[in-house]
Amino acid sequence: MKRTIRVGLVGCGVVGTGILRLLHDNAETIEGRLGARLEVVAIAARSADRARDPIVPADKLCFDPFAVAEREDVEIVLEVMGGVDQAGEVVRRALESGKHVITANKALIAERGDVLIPLAEERGLDLYFEAAVAGGIPIIRMLREALAADRILSLRGILNGTSNYILTRMQRDGLGFDEALRLAQEAGYAEADPTLDISGGDARHKLAILATLAFGARVDPNDIPMQGIEDITSLDCRFAKRFGFVIRPLAIAKPTEAGALSLRVHPALVPAGSVLAGVSGALNAVAIEGAMLGPAMITGLGAGALPTAMSMVSDLVDVCRNLLAGAHGRVPSRAFRSQPSQRSVDDAGALLSRYYLRFSVKDRPGVLARIAGVLGAFDVSIEQMVQEGGSSDGPAQVVILTHIARESEMLSALSEVDRLSHVVAPTMLLRIEDL
Amino acid sequence: MKRTIRVGLVGCGVVGTGILRLLHDNAETIEGRLGARLEVVAIAARSADRARDPIVPADKLCFDPFAVAEREDVEIVLEVMGGVDQAGEVVRRALESGKHVITANKALIAERGDVLIPLAEERGLDLYFEAAVAGGIPIIRMLREALAADRILSLRGILNGTSNYILTRMQRDGLGFDEALRLAQEAGYAEADPTLDISGGDARHKLAILATLAFGARVDPNDIPMQGIEDITSLDCRFAKRFGFVIRPLAIAKPTEAGALSLRVHPALVPAGSVLAGVSGALNAVAIEGAMLGPAMITGLGAGALPTAMSMVSDLVDVCRNLLAGAHGRVPSRAFRSQPSQRSVDDAGALLSRYYLRFSVKDRPGVLARIAGVLGAFDVSIEQMVQEGGSSDGPAQVVILTHIARESEMLSALSEVDRLSHVVAPTMLLRIEDL
Repeated sequence: MKRTIRVGLVGCGVVGTGILRLLHDNAETIEGRLGARLEVVAIAARSADRARDPIVPADKLCFDPFAVAEREDVEIVLEVMGGVDQAGEVVRRALESGKHVITANKALIAERGDVLIPLAEERGLDLYFEAAVAGGIPIIRMLREALAADRILSLRGILNGTSNYILTRMQRDGLGFDEALRLAQEAGYAEADPTLDISGGDARHKLAILATLAFGARVDPNDIPMQGIEDITSLDCRFAKRFGFVIRPLAIAKPTEAGALSLRVHPALVPAGSVLAGVSGALNAVAIEGAMLGPAMITGLGAGALPTAMSMVSDLVDVCRNLLAGAHGRVPSRAFRSQPSQRSVDDAGALLSRYYLRFSVKDRPGVLARIAGVLGAFDVSIEQMVQEGGSSDGPAQVVILTHIARESEMLSALSEVDRLSHVVAPTMLLRIEDL
Repeated sequence: MKRTIRVGLVGCGVVGTGILRLLHDNAETIEGRLGARLEVVAIAARSADRARDPIVPADKLCFDPFAVAEREDVEIVLEVMGGVDQAGEVVRRALESGKHVITANKALIAERGDVLIPLAEERGLDLYFEAAVAGGIPIIRMLREALAADRILSLRGILNGTSNYILTRMQRDGLGFDEALRLAQEAGYAEADPTLDISGGDARHKLAILATLAFGARVDPNDIPMQGIEDITSLDCRFAKRFGFVIRPLAIAKPTEAGALSLRVHPALVPAGSVLAGVSGALNAVAIEGAMLGPAMITGLGAGALPTAMSMVSDLVDVCRNLLAGAHGRVPSRAFRSQPSQRSVDDAGALLSRYYLRFSVKDRPGVLARIAGVLGAFDVSIEQMVQEGGSSDGPAQVVILTHIARESEMLSALSEVDRLSHVVAPTMLLRIEDL
């Protein structure tokens, strides 16, 4: 008789349903690979009043996540309920009841990983979270295992598919932000409330997890400076193109020479022919530079029910392999135990970068000279400049690409520029990532 | 006291030396991650008369690979001696002596994997070979673990960095094949005898391994049809560009509708803006389409001492984790046990593809009509045609892009065309991979 491994599923939305579908459709393959049967014995949904996919077995459905997390015969808990507080409590109680846990919850790992991961390790349990970052990309596995012997020099990612989709549509089809957002929502890429995606908050959670694994010191997501994409206009997309760039939503982690970590989430201009420029639409990507490995990049769909479910089931197969081999906690995550202060996050103002600046000004003599004067006073030197418009139909747009400047100086200069009398709107600033 | 894991190294060329360097430089990190010490206790080199890197400890050097493979206190053997027959014997005897084995030897795994992998599994030992395919790309791990729950619809790779480097230089710098090959040799990408790289033989070994893992049935490398890059001229590169393509050395595996596997290694025209076109120089790439995962691609350096050594040390860390957890054979490779006949390899002639054809002809009236006539008789229809040259300075070049045609018909047509009286050289055929 084959061994049966019993699984509890907490959360039964699109990802949860996708997991059930995947386990059902691939039962034979998975059983063949494992030499054991998988059985979902309990499912916790949020509420009864919802039409469900017929794949969800009504007799296993309940509405108490804790009952599933602590159920006697469950060996592995899959958490897809989302949120931080209740999900954190569910995961904690599952671990304390001796269950292995697999989660797709990036906010949970980024914010509570420092407690939950050591708890799992102390109990000799697996806590896997591949699906938490870039669903269709096995980047966690790559960082934890394939690069176990290397030292990572930099990590650059496109970690939010929604933002990348919006920017791609704006640039390719000349759309405005609102229109592109609407299309992203229609295509199912953006939530009804897209704030977390377009603000950079989602990417910040993911970067915190990746940076913790890549650089061996826990990163608090709240320590990562971020800029959203919501202020980018079709004008910016057009100017970027004119200068040979495309705008991509980046998340960057890189040690500084002094040993701190430089971390940032912001849209940036990348050269039109570069590898990250080629990552368009809803695709995600993570580009790594390893001391030994050299440059490597992995791209794939970042989210969506299917890639996320697939990724969780791959984790499930892996945890089952550990379970069958009696080898839990095979790959430790010591990094999450460390204090955030263990490796300091570099002061955002210390960044050295080239910048794209778009000024909205009244087309009066002397305006440009005054802007250039302020920039010069803060050691920001101009590499290129172009002016457009500025007749009766509105303000002129002046776009400047700078040479490398220090971010703190750059921001001080802009706050002064924005107070000039003929500057009619806040200046748009985007960083240039030359790679 | 920390546990010490004793390792034997068979082969002490650039990769072997790189492994020693890496283990030395990262000893502390690796020890921290494992909670155990690694010690290389014996090294087998080919011959004494060679200057060695000072990292190679003279007191541990010997010249008998079998002595290292069977040495009592060795728990893990790293094989980097290359070749098939002797290396196969070394690995067999290591496994029979109860050692875990890590190898970078693609020919060995492709040709003897059907014997060695089951042997390892029967003995409950690990036989790891991540470095055998695309050193800097953890594709074996991705196929064996991350995609454990998915069904792969297609796999397309650029698996030979030397060929990719040569074609890139030819296309970017307008060089001829010989000149580009010489530069590849100078840059250390090509061997003194580059046959295995440019003929496709190397890529064929790698594709056999990847296809076995991806599609769950053993592929014999000799069953894979291949075309080398040595007949491609700068003319072909120029024409390809004119039609909006670049030429890349591809390796493709894809199930047919009838359930067979279509496998091939050949240079192909890919659209200039496509992801594979972006993989240039010595980079390798593997693009996968998963039923759940959707499209994903991973790129990185394919070879070189450092990425290969890094990849082997990552395998070593992984095997040590299994060893410490008592969890060998965690990830079985049943596919290598199967008979090559278990899933049939599709007849090469059954391929449906678009083709690039370059005819060298005497510029006489009626030549084109006769070529077109032969193509038409074999159901090959012409999509585009362009003619160049053909004065006193040599034959005219006629390039035709076809619509989709069946390969067997295409080849029959060409063998007839090449017998026509005004056709002065064998026709150049390249497949078009529209992706």
